[in-house]
Amino acid sequence: MELIDGNLISRQIIEELTLEVSNLVGIKPSVTFVRVGEDPASVSYVNKKGKVAARIGIESNLMVFPEIITQEELINEITTLNEDPSVHGILVQAPLPSHIDERVVFNHVLPTKDVDGFNAANLGRLCQEDDDAFVACTPAGIVELIKRSKIETEGKRAVILGRSLIVGKPVALLMAKKGNPGNCTVTICHSRTRDLATVTREADILVAAIGRAEFVKADMVKPGAAVIDVGINRVEDASRPRGYRLVGDVAFDEVSEIASQMTPVPGGVGPMTVAMLMRNTVKAYLMATQAIT
Amino acid sequence: MELIDGNLISRQIIEELTLEVSNLVGIKPSVTFVRVGEDPASVSYVNKKGKVAARIGIESNLMVFPEIITQEELINEITTLNEDPSVHGILVQAPLPSHIDERVVFNHVLPTKDVDGFNAANLGRLCQEDDDAFVACTPAGIVELIKRSKIETEGKRAVILGRSLIVGKPVALLMAKKGNPGNCTVTICHSRTRDLATVTREADILVAAIGRAEFVKADMVKPGAAVIDVGINRVEDASRPRGYRLVGDVAFDEVSEIASQMTPVPGGVGPMTVAMLMRNTVKAYLMATQAIT
Repeated sequence: MELIDGNLISRQIIEELTLEVSNLVGIKPSVTFVRVGEDPASVSYVNKKGKVAARIGIESNLMVFPEIITQEELINEITTLNEDPSVHGILVQAPLPSHIDERVVFNHVLPTKDVDGFNAANLGRLCQEDDDAFVACTPAGIVELIKRSKIETEGKRAVILGRSLIVGKPVALLMAKKGNPGNCTVTICHSRTRDLATVTREADILVAAIGRAEFVKADMVKPGAAVIDVGINRVEDASRPRGYRLVGDVAFDEVSEIASQMTPVPGGVGPMTVAMLMRNTVKAYLMATQAIT
Repeated sequence: MELIDGNLISRQIIEELTLEVSNLVGIKPSVTFVRVGEDPASVSYVNKKGKVAARIGIESNLMVFPEIITQEELINEITTLNEDPSVHGILVQAPLPSHIDERVVFNHVLPTKDVDGFNAANLGRLCQEDDDAFVACTPAGIVELIKRSKIETEGKRAVILGRSLIVGKPVALLMAKKGNPGNCTVTICHSRTRDLATVTREADILVAAIGRAEFVKADMVKPGAAVIDVGINRVEDASRPRGYRLVGDVAFDEVSEIASQMTPVPGGVGPMTVAMLMRNTVKAYLMATQAIT
């Protein structure tokens, strides 16, 4: 089994972007992170994104709003960012408080600044196979891993376990679209799928994104399949300093015995998400400053 | 085998809409058809749509532009319609001349007037499982046929043959989404799919939308499957007055021997498309006049 090293591949992308940004003349790409409240995971994610941006030479700004901000107030803030030409990309860190409808907020981000790719217009452009669309960072990262690991997709069967808006559906669309990577026969599975193991065993490429710890066992995987594990789940583990360890949606030890290629957790899809956010920010900058449309 | 009668079901929908529109007080729903050039099929389709609108009590207007209209001029015309509050729905009849990018034109139709459902924002909202989205008329018609024919979808395997923007992809999204109809395990096949018959035989519900006359043979269909035939293909037939007959993408005679339910061509999906356009127009009217958002 060949391990797909997301840390290594994301570092390569970050290096490529650093070179690209260093060659830019004049103003640099700029992304604004919008965070609501003090959720520790959100604080950590946004900090991480800011650090990677700085390493590349992308300017980042952080706007923090209190947990009690109303949806209307938040939308007004986003409108201000939409209208500010010095802001090339806007990322609203999820999750938002429960009194705010995330979908409504994401749909208010200007499509040309929507580096997170959650705006309906960008999802629709993805359906339209428009290369100018901003693709959500995790799906884009999965496809980039597949591409750089030279996993053949043409005519292969891809099975996507999970139908979420942020992973499952965009990945399905990307794997089915014309091109390379692409041209897969794609199956979308989910909680209502019957006889799931039969379906997942059809996969030459299996993408697991259901958020259930070590759910995919060896008997659900076709020998020789490439397995992309999108899950990040905490499992209690008294032997660890923090009392838990991180595992994916795939039972790594047993599946690694039969897969041909496989992403670890952590260090697989995770680091790709931040790298893709940076690539989207540079793309937004180029679209804004060089009128690439 | 039980025939799924699209003529009958579309008539029921048109009757329901006629009743609904007759109960509306004040201004009536209004749709504007935009046609470019004199393509006989387009002329015929638009005429048909206008007649059905009139029967329901929907006002329709036709704007015809010469084949030589530029993309920019056409977009300006659409902008005028977007800004006209008396226009509730806008339909740009495809195909457009080759010098015009259809996708760009469709994306200029205001999403809230996009009764054809081809605007990126509506495709994206379909991905977001937003019930306010306008769903393209053929996919919406397919789902309505499935619903009214009481074809069970929950946990079933649906195989969509074709990955087009106007049929394949939206149908896949609709069949995979939460709800009823919905909750299918969905597979998207296309020209690059290997061992196609094996894949299509997995289908409890098979939707054929590839535009190849009588392509789906009995050995590609699981006995007892429900088969939805979206194709409309001309086949030379000297015995017919016009020299051709219309056939679907499915070899009707042999497949009807093993399918449990099946749409004929013509008289299956075709009539549903116009009915769904009318339903979308009434929806656009209600959203505009009653501020349903």
